Amino acid sequence: VRRLQFNVAYDGTDFHGWQVQPDLLTVQGVLESVIGSIEGGTVHVDGSGRTDAGVHALAQVAAVTLNNPIPVDNFRRAVNRLLPLTIRISNVEEAAEDFHPRFHARRKTYEYRIFRGEICSPFERRWVHHYPYPLEEDAMISAAALYAGGHDFTAFAAADEKDALGRSKRRFIYHSTLRREDQSLIFRIAGSGFLKHMVRNLVGVLLEVGKGNLDADAVCARLANGSQYRPGPTAPASGLVLISVEYE
Amino acid sequence: VRRLQFNVAYDGTDFHGWQVQPDLLTVQGVLESVIGSIEGGTVHVDGSGRTDAGVHALAQVAAVTLNNPIPVDNFRRAVNRLLPLTIRISNVEEAAEDFHPRFHARRKTYEYRIFRGEICSPFERRWVHHYPYPLEEDAMISAAALYAGGHDFTAFAAADEKDALGRSKRRFIYHSTLRREDQSLIFRIAGSGFLKHMVRNLVGVLLEVGKGNLDADAVCARLANGSQYRPGPTAPASGLVLISVEYE
Repeated sequence: VRRLQFNVAYDGTDFHGWQVQPDLLTVQGVLESVIGSIEGGTVHVDGSGRTDAGVHALAQVAAVTLNNPIPVDNFRRAVNRLLPLTIRISNVEEAAEDFHPRFHARRKTYEYRIFRGEICSPFERRWVHHYPYPLEEDAMISAAALYAGGHDFTAFAAADEKDALGRSKRRFIYHSTLRREDQSLIFRIAGSGFLKHMVRNLVGVLLEVGKGNLDADAVCARLANGSQYRPGPTAPASGLVLISVEYE
Repeated sequence: VRRLQFNVAYDGTDFHGWQVQPDLLTVQGVLESVIGSIEGGTVHVDGSGRTDAGVHALAQVAAVTLNNPIPVDNFRRAVNRLLPLTIRISNVEEAAEDFHPRFHARRKTYEYRIFRGEICSPFERRWVHHYPYPLEEDAMISAAALYAGGHDFTAFAAADEKDALGRSKRRFIYHSTLRREDQSLIFRIAGSGFLKHMVRNLVGVLLEVGKGNLDADAVCARLANGSQYRPGPTAPASGLVLISVEYE
């Protein structure tokens, strides 16, 4: 028995997210089916975390336990040959038998792209949230920096997880910036971990700041007393990309 | 009656090319249907030229004759609202009544992208020809320059047009270069006009040079005595983008 880890890039547009679901096309489901056909049996692919339907990944990290002694280069080529072109694996390596991409992850980085121009190119449209309406961008840029540091992110958890007991909603954010690049606003955030819908809710609140519906004090209040607030609004999935996952 | 001209960007992956065809999804067909619904009647959209199934455009140029007095900004917004996200129009302008995007075009520029890495990103795959196998790239770069100047391109015409009489196959190429950019080879060509399949056949011949099947002399012979050669091979459509069309 051996454990392999690898990176997974995917265009999430046509997938119902990462996690296996009966009768739905998911990234984990497709990987398990393809790797299972190479292993000649059922396999379980672990990821660094779920991504929602429509969310993309540049380098999700996954791991699988195999009996098959196939060399890593052959494994990479065989898997990519069988996968749809919307999913590619790379950087296949032998890992420790107990390596778990989720439990051992130390830092994850996401980017969220808001396209501000009137006309969104057919070549960009799959990876952006197209929002061409007025926004106070300077206020958003200032507010984005407030997310940095350690906070209880209860106000930014998915509605169905917000009141779950016994699991801390505290996360540490190493880096949180919003910047203009040509016609796009790019939100980049790196943290110790993220709750379900958290990045999309953080962006949703920034958009409310941009529309003048919330100010910096309102953002701080959500970081200080999260349970008093209903989560969201949740920004659309299309703009979000899991950029990288780091381990010790 | 007025004449409008505009640019059209499209992701050609899911279209059966530019030109209207019965029962098939084409860019011209979708534009005529959408603009016809604004006009309240049948319209004919002229393009600067056909693009094959799967070929993309950054700025195809098109024109349409309308009775509707709708301002150009409203026209642009209304058309984009009705179009699928894979087609966008921009730069709508009033044009001379006799303006024809094909007959009056003076120069067209295309790019063809060959992705050389083993693993083609899900985010690039729609706009490249993925060719990860060995190629003598320096020989290809030298051969690409041979296309510049005025030549009879009979050897690079589509098979079904090669022997058509009465239409000159002579075209003038202002610019023809192949360059490496990161993991891609990018062929950029600007010319007075292009025959059906011509850019894809020019790339197909460059690929034969890269594989060592043809040398510079063989390329020159095709430019000098085109009718002696069977056209092709035709490189895949996915790598080709119509970049711009210029007028006087």
